[in-house]
Amino acid sequence: MIIGKVVGSLFSTKKSEKLVGSKFMIVEPVEMMEIAQSRLVAIDGIGAGIGEYVIVAQGSAARIGCDKEDAPIDAAIVGIIDEGQDWSK
Amino acid sequence: MIIGKVVGSLFSTKKSEKLVGSKFMIVEPVEMMEIAQSRLVAIDGIGAGIGEYVIVAQGSAARIGCDKEDAPIDAAIVGIIDEGQDWSK
Amino acid sequence: MIIGKVVGSLFSTKKSEKLVGSKFMIVEPVEMMEIAQSRLVAIDGIGAGIGEYVIVAQGSAARIGCDKEDAPIDAAIVGIIDEGQDWSK
Amino acid sequence: MIIGKVVGSLFSTKKSEKLVGSKFMIVEPVEMMEIAQSRLVAIDGIGAGIGEYVIVAQGSAARIGCDKEDAPIDAAIVGIIDEGQDWSK
Amino acid sequence: MIIGKVVGSLFSTKKSEKLVGSKFMIVEPVEMMEIAQSRLVAIDGIGAGIGEYVIVAQGSAARIGCDKEDAPIDAAIVGIIDEGQDWSK
Repeated sequence: MIIGKVVGSLFSTKKSEKLVGSKFMIVEPVEMMEIAQSRLVAIDGIGAGIGEYVIVAQGSAARIGCDKEDAPIDAAIVGIIDEGQDWSK
Repeated sequence: MIIGKVVGSLFSTKKSEKLVGSKFMIVEPVEMMEIAQSRLVAIDGIGAGIGEYVIVAQGSAARIGCDKEDAPIDAAIVGIIDEGQDWSK
Repeated sequence: MIIGKVVGSLFSTKKSEKLVGSKFMIVEPVEMMEIAQSRLVAIDGIGAGIGEYVIVAQGSAARIGCDKEDAPIDAAIVGIIDEGQDWSK
Repeated sequence: MIIGKVVGSLFSTKKSEKLVGSKFMIVEPVEMMEIAQSRLVAIDGIGAGIGEYVIVAQGSAARIGCDKEDAPIDAAIVGIIDEGQDWSK
Repeated sequence: MIIGKVVGSLFSTKKSEKLVGSKFMIVEPVEMMEIAQSRLVAIDGIGAGIGEYVIVAQGSAARIGCDKEDAPIDAAIVGIIDEGQDWSK
């Protein structure tokens, strides 16, 4: 998984039926995790807000994280990082 | 998922039988999402047109997005982004 | 999926039993798709020849593309691109 | 799999229910394995400590490594490397 | 799949039970395949030796290549390349 900051959300009216009700968030990986990874779109299944630092799971794990195993999802927010932690050490 | 712009389509007469009827689109990721990702070929299951900005799912999620779980697809257009949104902030 | 050119083939006598009969091809992604991807070895299930431009599927999609779901394959040639198309626009 | 050093841990109170009880560790790949890979968050299923060198499996393998096949996990610590080995040769 | 050279092996006494009996090899991708890929740890299921050039499958294909579908493996040596071939042309 990677750590990222939620920087925005995204609307898509015309989409796969299986994505109806899914919330698209734009996540920016934190600096130490960004070499191979630019921003990505992740589905939020736990109620993350813009500005929060989150844990993003990718691949088949993402569908499981959203309890939407039959939806075309390859990235999901699966945890919000508790405040006051320094993961850059 | 990533955001990209549909920049072209592609024809392949000789292909896996399971891909018959699939529409190959060439998608160019938007700038903020392109570090690790150059253009790719994605199957369109929702009727995206050239010039539209779309959400692309990759990996096993792509087959699910196209309702073609037994087809050799690793990238699919799963949503068209509503106009008037600025995802570069 | 990505577009690549078949630039060679490869022989492996000592290999996983499940790969017996599989044809290993070396594929070089076309320039606009090569940032994150150098050459790779893909299984050919449709009869591609050296010099042809092909569509390569990766990940679990590759096994499906070759109808070899129990073989250790992570890249497969799933289509040959029709001649006369310009995908670099 | 890649080799990395456990450099920290991470707490997430608000997370996917399926992750309750999982221990989030921050792993830094060793130099020879870091070109395409910056730090990542991996679930520890074997009791690795900070400072130890570990083997990290990614993708669907990670869920299997943690015996949590229905949890949204895409990276797991699956082995601790015995001391006294030089893998940089 | 990628082509790499086996450059070393690795011991891990404390590891996932499902990895008991697996042999960890360090593989260095050949130059033309190394842009996105630094060294990696792959399980050897076919008896490759140090110095040999091998074919490595990644992702879920790796578990299949080792006949260890329930083990946390994301890279496996699935073939040894016959000598006398030039794959750099």
